Amino acid sequence: MKEVTVRAPATVSNVVCGFDCLGFAIDEPFDEVTVRRRDEPGIAIVHKDEFGLPTDPRENVAGVAVEAMLAEAGADFGVEIEIEKAIKPGSGIGSSGASSCGAVVATNWLLEEQFPAVKLIEFAMEGERLASGARHADNVAPCILGGFVLVRSIDPIDVVRLDFPPLFATIIHPQIEVKTAEARAVLPDLVPLRSAVRNWSNLGALVAALEKGDYELIGRSLVDEIVEPARRGLIPQFDEAKAAGLAAGAIGGGISGSGPSIFMLSKTRERAEIVRAAMAEAYEQTGIPFNTYVSEIGQQGASLR
Amino acid sequence: MKEVTVRAPATVSNVVCGFDCLGFAIDEPFDEVTVRRRDEPGIAIVHKDEFGLPTDPRENVAGVAVEAMLAEAGADFGVEIEIEKAIKPGSGIGSSGASSCGAVVATNWLLEEQFPAVKLIEFAMEGERLASGARHADNVAPCILGGFVLVRSIDPIDVVRLDFPPLFATIIHPQIEVKTAEARAVLPDLVPLRSAVRNWSNLGALVAALEKGDYELIGRSLVDEIVEPARRGLIPQFDEAKAAGLAAGAIGGGISGSGPSIFMLSKTRERAEIVRAAMAEAYEQTGIPFNTYVSEIGQQGASLR
Repeated sequence: MKEVTVRAPATVSNVVCGFDCLGFAIDEPFDEVTVRRRDEPGIAIVHKDEFGLPTDPRENVAGVAVEAMLAEAGADFGVEIEIEKAIKPGSGIGSSGASSCGAVVATNWLLEEQFPAVKLIEFAMEGERLASGARHADNVAPCILGGFVLVRSIDPIDVVRLDFPPLFATIIHPQIEVKTAEARAVLPDLVPLRSAVRNWSNLGALVAALEKGDYELIGRSLVDEIVEPARRGLIPQFDEAKAAGLAAGAIGGGISGSGPSIFMLSKTRERAEIVRAAMAEAYEQTGIPFNTYVSEIGQQGASLR
Repeated sequence: MKEVTVRAPATVSNVVCGFDCLGFAIDEPFDEVTVRRRDEPGIAIVHKDEFGLPTDPRENVAGVAVEAMLAEAGADFGVEIEIEKAIKPGSGIGSSGASSCGAVVATNWLLEEQFPAVKLIEFAMEGERLASGARHADNVAPCILGGFVLVRSIDPIDVVRLDFPPLFATIIHPQIEVKTAEARAVLPDLVPLRSAVRNWSNLGALVAALEKGDYELIGRSLVDEIVEPARRGLIPQFDEAKAAGLAAGAIGGGISGSGPSIFMLSKTRERAEIVRAAMAEAYEQTGIPFNTYVSEIGQQGASLR
């Protein structure tokens, strides 16, 4: 039986001043997605984890992504998609995107790599549409390409992979649910032009700082007066956890995706571990259970195991 | 008598999606500013051009910039500032900024280069405050530093010089007046978050494209749905002139500063000349007199002649 297994990494989107257009992939956690070719058409979903996600392919993010892909390829075969998630659903670190991306990268191998990366992003976005009601690429683009990716446009897809210096992410994932719909609803429809200008000045500087490897400028640019003020109330003890991370020597950070995870960036793994300890200590006061992760921001996106 | 002459280049600010934070310097036109040390304190302004600008140093952009500078230096001498402008006031290509920058760079030479570039930008911004009522750095920062400069913040000053590939600017300057106050007044106080997101996605991509030397991405990123739609009505035949420049092979372009000048970017000087001819032909239909310029985007800012 022809099959392949792909590791698809967790991703941090928005990245403070890059709301809806910037994201990066971390080395771990990652989902493992195995896709097996079947002679009969159609898609079967098999879960190897305890998250109880849908097995109906039309209700599963990997299912809809692969369905779009097989249709466009005019494939005369079907697939079984076996998903072993390590990225908890609803964590705000690209869980749905990882499953979709793992599945499309694996299926593309079955299709003899006929689709370029930009098409894989497009297919994976079908999963994002199912998960959140909106097509967006700021998780799936870095999950496919690895590293830091800026999404200039999704229609048509226009993404640019940024250069960046060694960076390590510390992530704290409070075990609470922040509904994407709620996180969208708290955002204003209109924003002051002055705030928008400050935001794009910061994003422009962040992109330049990543390209140049200027850690200090990365830190100064990680400022957001539009989205973070609207959303931080959804995450208990957000300000304290962020302050603890910064005090422990992180370069900067903020809400990961639409939350509830909080990320911090550091120059070294050692520093990222110190930041983890400081944030964990701050967060223990909430009484809310949480997970933490420390990972390098990797160069590699979803890829064959 | 101790004196020095500085050439201070014209600059294009805003650069379509970089409203209030991005600008670049061109090699020509440039103002020439000579500063002479005088034993008696105080500032005298001498004009060697026909523009009839103020000679009272408190009402002259170069005067207020140098006054702030001499005060901070605790200088025990005065200066005569002789200004020979080639950049027409009110053209939208950084005329006031060039005079201020030329004067502070020259005065810094008299002060034995005691101030770093970031302080020179700060002093020159005093001139901008006088000229437009607002402190802004998107003309004076590139005029001081040369090349493309992103202004992350003006308080405190935080600027970053971008790498960029060979680029040539074509500028058409209609001989009409667009008052900066009017160009500000037509801007909305509030903008849709969705438009702001598209703008910062474009600016982020533009910065990445400049750093990487990706001409095609530069072109795709030069899009603005916030400021240009509000201001283009102030410039007769703007759409036609821009369309003519694009049709002639320019990478992209738009309003320079707050207008009325229009700029286009090209990969080569030859192309920039073709773009000039096409835009001039389109603009002749207005019956409005105009000047045109073609210049490389230089690496050098205001510097001793």
